[in-house]
Amino acid sequence: MKNFIYQNPTKLVFGKGQIAKLPQLIPAGKKIMITFGGGSVKSNGVYDQVKTALKDFETIEFWGIEPNPKVETLRKAIELGKEKNIDFLLAVGGGSVLDGTKLISAALAMPDKEAWEIVLSGYAPVNTPYASVMTLPATGSEMNRGSVISRKETKEKYAFYSVDYPQFCILDPEVTYSLPKNQLANGLSDVFVHVMEQYLTTTGQSRVMDRWAEGILHTIIEIAPKVLSGTHDYDTMADFMLSATLALNDMIRMGVTEDWATHMIGHELTALYGIAHGASLAIVLPGTMSVMREQKRGKLLQYADRIWNITEGGEDERINLAIARTVDFFNSLGQATRLSEAGIPEEAAAEVERRFNERDVHYGEEGNVTGKVARQILESRK
Amino acid sequence: MKNFIYQNPTKLVFGKGQIAKLPQLIPAGKKIMITFGGGSVKSNGVYDQVKTALKDFETIEFWGIEPNPKVETLRKAIELGKEKNIDFLLAVGGGSVLDGTKLISAALAMPDKEAWEIVLSGYAPVNTPYASVMTLPATGSEMNRGSVISRKETKEKYAFYSVDYPQFCILDPEVTYSLPKNQLANGLSDVFVHVMEQYLTTTGQSRVMDRWAEGILHTIIEIAPKVLSGTHDYDTMADFMLSATLALNDMIRMGVTEDWATHMIGHELTALYGIAHGASLAIVLPGTMSVMREQKRGKLLQYADRIWNITEGGEDERINLAIARTVDFFNSLGQATRLSEAGIPEEAAAEVERRFNERDVHYGEEGNVTGKVARQILESRK
Repeated sequence: MKNFIYQNPTKLVFGKGQIAKLPQLIPAGKKIMITFGGGSVKSNGVYDQVKTALKDFETIEFWGIEPNPKVETLRKAIELGKEKNIDFLLAVGGGSVLDGTKLISAALAMPDKEAWEIVLSGYAPVNTPYASVMTLPATGSEMNRGSVISRKETKEKYAFYSVDYPQFCILDPEVTYSLPKNQLANGLSDVFVHVMEQYLTTTGQSRVMDRWAEGILHTIIEIAPKVLSGTHDYDTMADFMLSATLALNDMIRMGVTEDWATHMIGHELTALYGIAHGASLAIVLPGTMSVMREQKRGKLLQYADRIWNITEGGEDERINLAIARTVDFFNSLGQATRLSEAGIPEEAAAEVERRFNERDVHYGEEGNVTGKVARQILESRK
Repeated sequence: MKNFIYQNPTKLVFGKGQIAKLPQLIPAGKKIMITFGGGSVKSNGVYDQVKTALKDFETIEFWGIEPNPKVETLRKAIELGKEKNIDFLLAVGGGSVLDGTKLISAALAMPDKEAWEIVLSGYAPVNTPYASVMTLPATGSEMNRGSVISRKETKEKYAFYSVDYPQFCILDPEVTYSLPKNQLANGLSDVFVHVMEQYLTTTGQSRVMDRWAEGILHTIIEIAPKVLSGTHDYDTMADFMLSATLALNDMIRMGVTEDWATHMIGHELTALYGIAHGASLAIVLPGTMSVMREQKRGKLLQYADRIWNITEGGEDERINLAIARTVDFFNSLGQATRLSEAGIPEEAAAEVERRFNERDVHYGEEGNVTGKVARQILESRK
C-alpha cells in the first residue's frame, strides 16, 4: 500500500425531502448565486423546492451551464457574481453544472485571474464557498475537488482541482425519476469507468480497496437494467446515486495507484466531436484494457474472476472474455463501443496522438500512455 | 435506503514514517498532553518518534490509561490537564488510550462537569481538540466520535459520543509488527464484529453498503492467518490497519439500520468479568446470530452465500453452517466462543438480564434485544 492522506469534509445529505434542509446548511446572510443547466429542474419540481427552501436568502440565478461546461458561458456567470458581490454558490443540476460552478467559485475568489488561466494552471488555491443539489448520478463531482471545463473556440477540455471540497451536497434519489434514458446510460458508464480507473492497475496494493471498488462495480452491473427501465423504485435509484458519489470521493483510492488514461482520451473525443462524456468512456475503456493488457495482466485476471466469474481457460482467454463482457455491458446500456458506431472518424486516433504529443502528456498508472499509445487504443476501437 | 447525513472530517494520515508529520498537523503554540497506555510504545520506538516530532511544542505526558479505560484513572489526567492549561490532546496507543482521551477532551472543555456524568449523559457537546497516533488496529476509535469508558467501583461500562471527530489520526502499519498475538486476535475479532453490527440486520436497504461491509469481512478473513503469524509483511498489516478504520468510521453505515446488541452484551461481560473486548464479542456474536435468526434470516442467508460460499441445502441448514463457520473463524484466532471456555460462569446470563432490565435498555435493529433476549443469547453460549 502506498502512503496516503485522506480527508474529505463534504457533508453528504442524502434522502427524500432533503432539499428542504438548505436553509440549515447555508450560513444566514449569504448572498447566493444559484446555478442551473437547462430547464429540466423546472419540470421535475427541483427548482420550486430550492426556491421555497431559500426564500429568506438573497439569491440570484444563473441559467444555461451546458453539458461539458464552456468557459465562454462561465465567464458571464463570473461577471455577474462579481457585480452582485456573491459569497456563496449553489449548483442545482448534474455534474456539469457543478463543475462549471467550481470554476465560478475559484474565479470569484481570485478576481484578477482569467478563468481559462485557472483551468490551465490545474489548481485553484482559493474558493468562494460552494455546494450542490445534485440531480444526476454520474460524475461524483458533488463530493470531490475536481472539475472538467471545455473551451469552445479551441475545442479543448481539461481538468483542474480546487483547494476546497464542496461544503455539502444534497442527494434526493426521487429527483432522478424523470431523467432520460441516455443520461442514465451515460451516468452508469461514467460511474463504472471511474471505479475502473482506480482499480484496473496493479494487484496486491490493497485488498480492502480492491473489494470496495469491486463492490461498486457489482452494484452498478446489478442495478443497470432496472435503472435504464426508468424505474421509480426508490432503493434502486438510491443505490445508483450513492454509488456515483462513492465512486469518486477519494474513498476507493486510499493507498492505490490510479490510471485515468481512459478519461483523458475520452475528453479529447468530447472536445473534438461533441460526444457525451459517458459515451466516450464506453468506447475507450475496452481499448485501454486491450492495449495495456500486459501491464494490467494480474488485475485483469482478478477482474475477470471477481466481477464476471470467469475462472476457466488460459490467462489470455480469460482476459479476452472479461473485455468482451465489459463491451457487452456497455452495449446493454445502449452505448456504442466503437468509434464508427458513434460516427467518429478514424482520423480521431491520429488527432488525439497529435494533441497528446503537442502538450507532451502521458497518462496511466505507469505514465506510459503517450500520444502513440493513445492512438493504438483508439485504433483498436475503430 | 434510509435518509442519512454523512460527514467525517478526520484527516487520515497513513503510511511509513508518517509520525514525523505531527508538527504539521498540530497548530503551533498548542500546549499538548500526550496520553499513553503501558510501556509498549517505548520498546517499539513509537515514543521516541513522537517526542522527536514534537520537540518544538510544550508537552506533558500522562501514562497508564489501561485497557477498558477507567474513569478513576482518567480523572487524574483531567486534573493534570486543568492544572497545566492543556489545549490539545494526542493519544498515542490503541483504542483504549484514545477512548480515554476523548473523555479527557470533553471534561477539559466542560470544567464544571464530572467525568462520569459526561459518560452517563451519552453525549459531549464540546471538545478540546484531540487526535491520535494509533498503534493497534481494532476499535476504529481513530476516525469516529464514540468512546467506551468503564467505572471500576461499580463494574459499569458505557459508550458516549463526542460532538467533534478526532482532528487527525496517524496510522503507520510498521508500528504493529511488535503486537502480541492475543491483541492481534482481539483486534481482528473487534473489526469483524464492528462490520457485522452494521451489516447483519435486514436485506435490501443498500446493495453498495452491503458490498462494502462484505469487502471488509472478506479482507479480514483472508489476512487473519498471516496477521496472527506475527508477520512483518507491510501490505498485510496495512490492510489490517486500514480495515479497522473503515469498519467504524461511518463509511459502511450510510442509509442502513444497525444492531450493536452483541457489543452491548459484550460490554457487560467485560465490566463483570474483565474479559477483553474482542474476546467477549467472539462469544456473543454466534449467540446473537442464532437467537435472532428469524429477524435476520434474509441477511444470514446473504452472509452465508457471499462470505462463506454456502449455496446448497435448505435455509436453516445454510444458516447453521454460516454460524458454524463464524465460530470456526473465531476459534482459528484462538478465541473462546463459549462462556465456559472463557471461564465465565453460567450466572452471567441472568446477571446481564438483570442489568439490562435495571436500566430498561433494549438493543438490536428492531430494539427488541431486551434483558430477556440478552439472557437467551448468553444461555446459547454456555
